[in-house]
Amino acid sequence: MAGWQQYLEQNRERRQAELMALLSIPSVSTEPAHAGDVRAAVEWAANRLKVAGLEHVGVHETGGHPVAYADWLHAPGKPTILFYGHVDVQPTDPLDLWASPPFEPRIVGDLVYARGACDMKASQIAAIAALESLLKTDGKLPVNVKLIVEAEEEIGSPNLKPFVTKNRDLLACDLVVSADGGQRSETEPSIAVGFRGVAGMEISVTTSSTDLHSGGFGGVAPNANQVLAELIVSLRTHGGRVLVDGFYDDVRVLNEADRAAIAAGALSEEEMRSRAGVEQLVGDPNFTPAERTAARPTLDVNGMWGGYQGPGGKTVIPRQAHAKITCRLVPNQEPGKIGNLVEAHLRRHLPPGVTLEVKYRGVGSKPYLMPADHPGNKALADVLRTLYAKPPVYSRSGGTIPIAADFREALGAWMITLGFALPGEGAHAPNEHHDLRAFHRGPTAYVRLLERLAQERPALLRAEEAVPVAR
Amino acid sequence: MAGWQQYLEQNRERRQAELMALLSIPSVSTEPAHAGDVRAAVEWAANRLKVAGLEHVGVHETGGHPVAYADWLHAPGKPTILFYGHVDVQPTDPLDLWASPPFEPRIVGDLVYARGACDMKASQIAAIAALESLLKTDGKLPVNVKLIVEAEEEIGSPNLKPFVTKNRDLLACDLVVSADGGQRSETEPSIAVGFRGVAGMEISVTTSSTDLHSGGFGGVAPNANQVLAELIVSLRTHGGRVLVDGFYDDVRVLNEADRAAIAAGALSEEEMRSRAGVEQLVGDPNFTPAERTAARPTLDVNGMWGGYQGPGGKTVIPRQAHAKITCRLVPNQEPGKIGNLVEAHLRRHLPPGVTLEVKYRGVGSKPYLMPADHPGNKALADVLRTLYAKPPVYSRSGGTIPIAADFREALGAWMITLGFALPGEGAHAPNEHHDLRAFHRGPTAYVRLLERLAQERPALLRAEEAVPVAR
Repeated sequence: MAGWQQYLEQNRERRQAELMALLSIPSVSTEPAHAGDVRAAVEWAANRLKVAGLEHVGVHETGGHPVAYADWLHAPGKPTILFYGHVDVQPTDPLDLWASPPFEPRIVGDLVYARGACDMKASQIAAIAALESLLKTDGKLPVNVKLIVEAEEEIGSPNLKPFVTKNRDLLACDLVVSADGGQRSETEPSIAVGFRGVAGMEISVTTSSTDLHSGGFGGVAPNANQVLAELIVSLRTHGGRVLVDGFYDDVRVLNEADRAAIAAGALSEEEMRSRAGVEQLVGDPNFTPAERTAARPTLDVNGMWGGYQGPGGKTVIPRQAHAKITCRLVPNQEPGKIGNLVEAHLRRHLPPGVTLEVKYRGVGSKPYLMPADHPGNKALADVLRTLYAKPPVYSRSGGTIPIAADFREALGAWMITLGFALPGEGAHAPNEHHDLRAFHRGPTAYVRLLERLAQERPALLRAEEAVPVAR
Repeated sequence: MAGWQQYLEQNRERRQAELMALLSIPSVSTEPAHAGDVRAAVEWAANRLKVAGLEHVGVHETGGHPVAYADWLHAPGKPTILFYGHVDVQPTDPLDLWASPPFEPRIVGDLVYARGACDMKASQIAAIAALESLLKTDGKLPVNVKLIVEAEEEIGSPNLKPFVTKNRDLLACDLVVSADGGQRSETEPSIAVGFRGVAGMEISVTTSSTDLHSGGFGGVAPNANQVLAELIVSLRTHGGRVLVDGFYDDVRVLNEADRAAIAAGALSEEEMRSRAGVEQLVGDPNFTPAERTAARPTLDVNGMWGGYQGPGGKTVIPRQAHAKITCRLVPNQEPGKIGNLVEAHLRRHLPPGVTLEVKYRGVGSKPYLMPADHPGNKALADVLRTLYAKPPVYSRSGGTIPIAADFREALGAWMITLGFALPGEGAHAPNEHHDLRAFHRGPTAYVRLLERLAQERPALLRAEEAVPVAR
């Protein structure tokens, strides 16, 4: 057993205690009230990096939540790897559906329950533990390593792109390794070669200057809830086909090779249904369920509200109603363009006399797609094959890593992904949890990936040039 | 000046202080947390009735909020008048739109701002003050008077109908006078000869067993917000035409006389638009705006909500969404039947794999319509003509007095209405207020109505028989 392996074994309990500590910080990046907690999580990570033996550890300010940076750059001639991860989490509501408080982590058997457990505090700690195990035993790493821990992933990393662009030299690297990802299951490894992008907005419709008595004005006054429902229904079909003019114009057509690759990595329809907890899947019948989540764009109303929501009733005609809407995007859709198309559609469908306010939540995130046979992915495949005694499947994730396309544009580096979340672990949902067996497997995987990447020539890992992704 | 007039003049300030006191009680009948406040308001009314010199004053329990009762029955051979009013109020949200706290009444010029100011705490106090002014000066009333003050009007009086039925002898009368009503404007009197009924429900749709990550499942999972929007849009057109099969089947067709009567009492379209604070009225072009609020049924979504409503965004596909819906009904629609039709429509339009829960909020309220030339209305017209130096217009109110039809069925008595709310005073809306000039005119109006009704023969006031209303 190598020294780093013994070290990891000896520090198992400490690592788990650290996970519990980080999970206890309510670092909800979208909620202004939690700004202090988000900073505390970043500072927690910076301290942990110092303890691990990394150098130049610092907390860097941005226009929003801060970023932790550290490095170890004493492997001349070897590739430079930029580790990426985040310590912010999604909001916890609906809170009443949680079996225990989301920021009081609770272990039940092999599972730890808390917001951020699988997305992605566990993998963040595992990656740091891997570096520590090498530095504390060998005194060195097999490659040069830089590391950033951000805290705006869950809100689209609006301040990370400017930070990366501004610090191009500091962050220069041959390959990015994101710890924000998952495996197909506890026994089946997988490699994500793409992520969907996101465009989002909040809309408000106003129909009158005040809420109205439904007796006095029912029959003559427009109803903001009704108008909002009409707009929502105008945007897409029940099955999810988006009805916005031009929405699909830039979507890259799937060829046979794309479809075969997606099919190879696909969950069965039955498994997808069961993981979603739905009776029936919906969606465009021209595409398989796997194609629909991997390579087709969507539009979902994440939240909507208007009028009286308290106990009992209130016979009111509400003056205003609101919705939060996000689209998942695929190559080659542009978030800015999609946002404009959706807004134009809404304005075109607005009834006379009704006003619409559109608030953009940040600029959105581009989709990302990289070659499955990139040397970085080949290295990853070797590591996963050893670890799981099974070759990985390749998949295009339906989710979004907002910064992925930006790394490619700003640093000219591809991003590969090694993380351990599992599809049924409730990311973004109540009762999020994570398998502690996967958590403890993590550090070994990261060490082996670094060792394997040390065999690669830096120039081969680098993207040839800084170009827009997925054109 | 009669003794009672002097008494009213002398007690002007006290009366206004009493109004402020009653307005300070947050008697929101729909909110369980305010049950104690609702009881306090009923007890306040009972105490006030005792002070006024009424007899048999008591607070009677029901299955819900209590009812105050009092009487004075020493005018043999004269009609027995049952005064009706309520001291509960609508909820206050959206609270942020109030310029001052809704239960801290504030006087600005001639206006008092508070929840319940126009609907209907002011008229309730005015009616009691009228009785007091006669009892404290003449020592008697010109007619026999019974009085009930309830506290469930704003939730459809679900427990008052059983109370009335059970206490038929106690409440036996020749005519009901409701203090819950309004005038056309501060200078134009009006008589309401009808009220719409109400049928209401709360619905919840459930699309999956948990909220889902819109990345992982966007494209295959149904979205509860989307389903709810689809159901809402299926129920009615933007203009308000209800699309539920059978909804209009029992609606009594308006004849030329009906239309002429409604037109005579109608606000101008411009005035209605301005009072509603909308840029454009909506509605069925086959009916005038006045006909649409007076004599046509409606369906409005009073509230809806689903998914994430906090700051920023959350990329979630919500598992559940909710709506509160009410219909205003006209003769001869039945609330129970309409509720069933709406529920059947929703179930028919529910996509496969989605579940629907329908919660009824009480049994609803029947519409009410009485003859404009009933002797009670003639008496009312005489009083109003004297008071405003102008003949009243007759109108069918778009609002609902839940108990009106029940009085007719249980007691065989018609209900006439004398109240002082004005259309622009924000009943059920933020910044509800009331004109203090109208408040102080109230007691005089009630005294004169009692004096005028003393000239009527009881048998002529009574409805011939206890029959369903508006068949």
